Amino acid sequence: MSKLTHFNEEGRAKMVEVGHKLNTQREATCKGSITMKPETLRRIIEHDIYKGDVLAVAQVAGIMAAKRTSELIPMCHNLFLSGADVQFHIDRENSRIEVLASVKTTGKTGVEMEALTAVSVTALTIYDMCKAIDKEMTITDICLLRKSGGKSGDYVRPGTEEDEIPLV
Amino acid sequence: MSKLTHFNEEGRAKMVEVGHKLNTQREATCKGSITMKPETLRRIIEHDIYKGDVLAVAQVAGIMAAKRTSELIPMCHNLFLSGADVQFHIDRENSRIEVLASVKTTGKTGVEMEALTAVSVTALTIYDMCKAIDKEMTITDICLLRKSGGKSGDYVRPGTEEDEIPLV
Amino acid sequence: MSKLTHFNEEGRAKMVEVGHKLNTQREATCKGSITMKPETLRRIIEHDIYKGDVLAVAQVAGIMAAKRTSELIPMCHNLFLSGADVQFHIDRENSRIEVLASVKTTGKTGVEMEALTAVSVTALTIYDMCKAIDKEMTITDICLLRKSGGKSGDYVRPGTEEDEIPLV
Amino acid sequence: MSKLTHFNEEGRAKMVEVGHKLNTQREATCKGSITMKPETLRRIIEHDIYKGDVLAVAQVAGIMAAKRTSELIPMCHNLFLSGADVQFHIDRENSRIEVLASVKTTGKTGVEMEALTAVSVTALTIYDMCKAIDKEMTITDICLLRKSGGKSGDYVRPGTEEDEIPLV
Amino acid sequence: MSKLTHFNEEGRAKMVEVGHKLNTQREATCKGSITMKPETLRRIIEHDIYKGDVLAVAQVAGIMAAKRTSELIPMCHNLFLSGADVQFHIDRENSRIEVLASVKTTGKTGVEMEALTAVSVTALTIYDMCKAIDKEMTITDICLLRKSGGKSGDYVRPGTEEDEIPLV
Amino acid sequence: MSKLTHFNEEGRAKMVEVGHKLNTQREATCKGSITMKPETLRRIIEHDIYKGDVLAVAQVAGIMAAKRTSELIPMCHNLFLSGADVQFHIDRENSRIEVLASVKTTGKTGVEMEALTAVSVTALTIYDMCKAIDKEMTITDICLLRKSGGKSGDYVRPGTEEDEIPLV
Repeated sequence: MSKLTHFNEEGRAKMVEVGHKLNTQREATCKGSITMKPETLRRIIEHDIYKGDVLAVAQVAGIMAAKRTSELIPMCHNLFLSGADVQFHIDRENSRIEVLASVKTTGKTGVEMEALTAVSVTALTIYDMCKAIDKEMTITDICLLRKSGGKSGDYVRPGTEEDEIPLV
Repeated sequence: MSKLTHFNEEGRAKMVEVGHKLNTQREATCKGSITMKPETLRRIIEHDIYKGDVLAVAQVAGIMAAKRTSELIPMCHNLFLSGADVQFHIDRENSRIEVLASVKTTGKTGVEMEALTAVSVTALTIYDMCKAIDKEMTITDICLLRKSGGKSGDYVRPGTEEDEIPLV
Repeated sequence: MSKLTHFNEEGRAKMVEVGHKLNTQREATCKGSITMKPETLRRIIEHDIYKGDVLAVAQVAGIMAAKRTSELIPMCHNLFLSGADVQFHIDRENSRIEVLASVKTTGKTGVEMEALTAVSVTALTIYDMCKAIDKEMTITDICLLRKSGGKSGDYVRPGTEEDEIPLV
Repeated sequence: MSKLTHFNEEGRAKMVEVGHKLNTQREATCKGSITMKPETLRRIIEHDIYKGDVLAVAQVAGIMAAKRTSELIPMCHNLFLSGADVQFHIDRENSRIEVLASVKTTGKTGVEMEALTAVSVTALTIYDMCKAIDKEMTITDICLLRKSGGKSGDYVRPGTEEDEIPLV
Repeated sequence: MSKLTHFNEEGRAKMVEVGHKLNTQREATCKGSITMKPETLRRIIEHDIYKGDVLAVAQVAGIMAAKRTSELIPMCHNLFLSGADVQFHIDRENSRIEVLASVKTTGKTGVEMEALTAVSVTALTIYDMCKAIDKEMTITDICLLRKSGGKSGDYVRPGTEEDEIPLV
Repeated sequence: MSKLTHFNEEGRAKMVEVGHKLNTQREATCKGSITMKPETLRRIIEHDIYKGDVLAVAQVAGIMAAKRTSELIPMCHNLFLSGADVQFHIDRENSRIEVLASVKTTGKTGVEMEALTAVSVTALTIYDMCKAIDKEMTITDICLLRKSGGKSGDYVRPGTEEDEIPLV
């Protein structure tokens, strides 16, 4: 075989090697919101949506999606999740639902992508089940609140009071 | 962020945290049956089915499904399976095929769901390949025969002689 | 290329060609049961299970599985499902839950495999969420109740009163 | 079989029947943004990220996710996509990247969920590939811009000039 | 929203729009080979491999992979397959197994990718099941033999006698 | 339960038990080639293909496929990949592109199937994106170059100079 010429050194995607990293307990908590019309929010709370109990379905979708994150995100490592949870905070004042997801693992990589994916798919499912009555819904402010474990140490999002981040 | 109000404390689904559990060798053996017309059973045994060798295909389907259990069962942890096997017992007297599946892992959770899923998908595949000639087939008696490993200890289904459970 | 010798004519599996079949409206309704201890049934009904509202999660799992049937069953055609529903019948007398699934399509093949898969995965999910308190649960009597559409005509399971099959 | 009692009429999720709907050409265009530090944006544009050319990878991830939308969103119909595209708009002023996705089908249901999923997974992939240098990135303003086809008619997001929506 | 600047016009991947194409009957037949030691070939034929009947398993794997082609190939359209078959030709003289796959659809795009994927995964499965005894196996000569249907018309690989292409 | 009669002892497929094996660092490097017309190769290099930057997309596809190997290959164990890379070598003289894939894990089984799958799907993606202009492309010479780790020890393909195998 002739000598290898890297085709495109700078543009090359790879799944970064993490074999040397330690298996440590890791956790990530993320949040996001979906804003909607007050009438839509009311009907979700009162279970008055044609397709069923919106939040029960969305929660299941978010947890299932967390487990499949590495299938969706190309350079994301597949890993064993030791736990996952999705919770909701109804924010009537701003006519929106906040989605919180927390994921844990004992492994070599962090789980922020799994938690972000759980938040995203939970919000997308809420959108799907209400889109017949509200096409202006907007999914917004998806971000990492806190992560722990791993060499880079713990992280709390600046401007966030840690005791306000739920222990999901 | 405002204080979190759990939307629905009692109705909330979560993937239970197992990070504190030990990685131990675990095994589960499950069984199930599919009953059919004697003529259907005869044709399966004699490889006289249009779609091919029914049991060979069903066995592959069952083992592949075991590996994807956590994609199907929402709150089931994904895990590494160290081995999986599916076997058949032809029960001419009762005109049925018994499906036995055994799955092993070294991990933090049991593998009974993987073994039950293997049994179910194996039986469904038998159904699929014979449905053109027998629509009354019934899948029945899917249950756990034995499990070992983990904190809750070993289990043998009451009324089952352990030496009658195959070492698959 | 040398002349082809079919390696194993009789034992060969294939996905049967259906290109010549008509796209017709097709429907299938299937059922199955999961038996359990009366105490387990009581706790499911009262939403008193650690992992959450069992039937809400199981229902979502069953519908999602129906859409992935062709990934699980090797020789099953992939197709567009126009609708799917899963319902429960609490049978306190026999301490079991009956699962009913109905699936519809406009296509070239029937949807009994999709409905049977929905029933199976719904029941497996119930098992998963209750297995910590009841290892003897048994999934049983999974069968086709009714199908319509396609060249082979309508089918109602012998011994079944059609008006007792729910219009799910 | 005893008479069916719907376990939970109001809380029941189902995949709504669409068999009676017409197969029409349908299209949806959605957008979303990911905000980041100016330094992160600069490095993405200059392909100076360890994991590779960020946007090339994210675009592929978004298109692949669009095809798997019905696996992620529980009550979303699976369907044939006739085309899908993802584009980027670099917004240096606000230090963010806008993601635009357009999906088309000839079918019985709309494709806004596919386009929203493409936007979400594209943005999540950008996050994944840059998270080592910027943990404060936020995915925001994911919404439907325009849809066409189907009985409910065309839709343009209020406040949006239609000629500003790209023909992706 | 500000005017869209295509980030990278020439480097942009998309799933090409095929909505205007006709739904026609399409078919593709592909082949490939896996070469091995004569001893390996002998043991496959005699079913003397530890992991089981190699070709029966490989055939199922190939057909299942054909159905999932659009999940693997980023810009490949998902579509309904009306039929799929995989066959083997034992070539003792050259100590190899030829894999032939044929896939059919009624749709807007061709199915050569599905047939090529079926050949590839069938060969990979043969490799997997024999790798303990033969690490030098080589998968080779995967190509399109014939396709029909669609606007571009029929195709037969140059140098191939059409009557030598099997009607799988 | 009556005594089990193994239906088909010699023809039985199983996922071989590896629970007793050690978790060691394992690596595999594989290669393969896709031959094409000189004009096709020129257009790939110059990014002059309608569907986009061919090699960037193919590389992502190959890495994503590596993570899903155990879904495609029936008796292949699922495992955690600690790293994966795909590289290209443009061979103008022979008018072909060589694909090299390297996969690493810390686990109980080798990763040659993951690397072979990455090579195969990368090459299939190149085919897909160029098939409109070149139907004679052929995927060829897919084989294992080197593996390390595990009880069976290190392996270098006979006839290969180890220093010519790239450290991907």
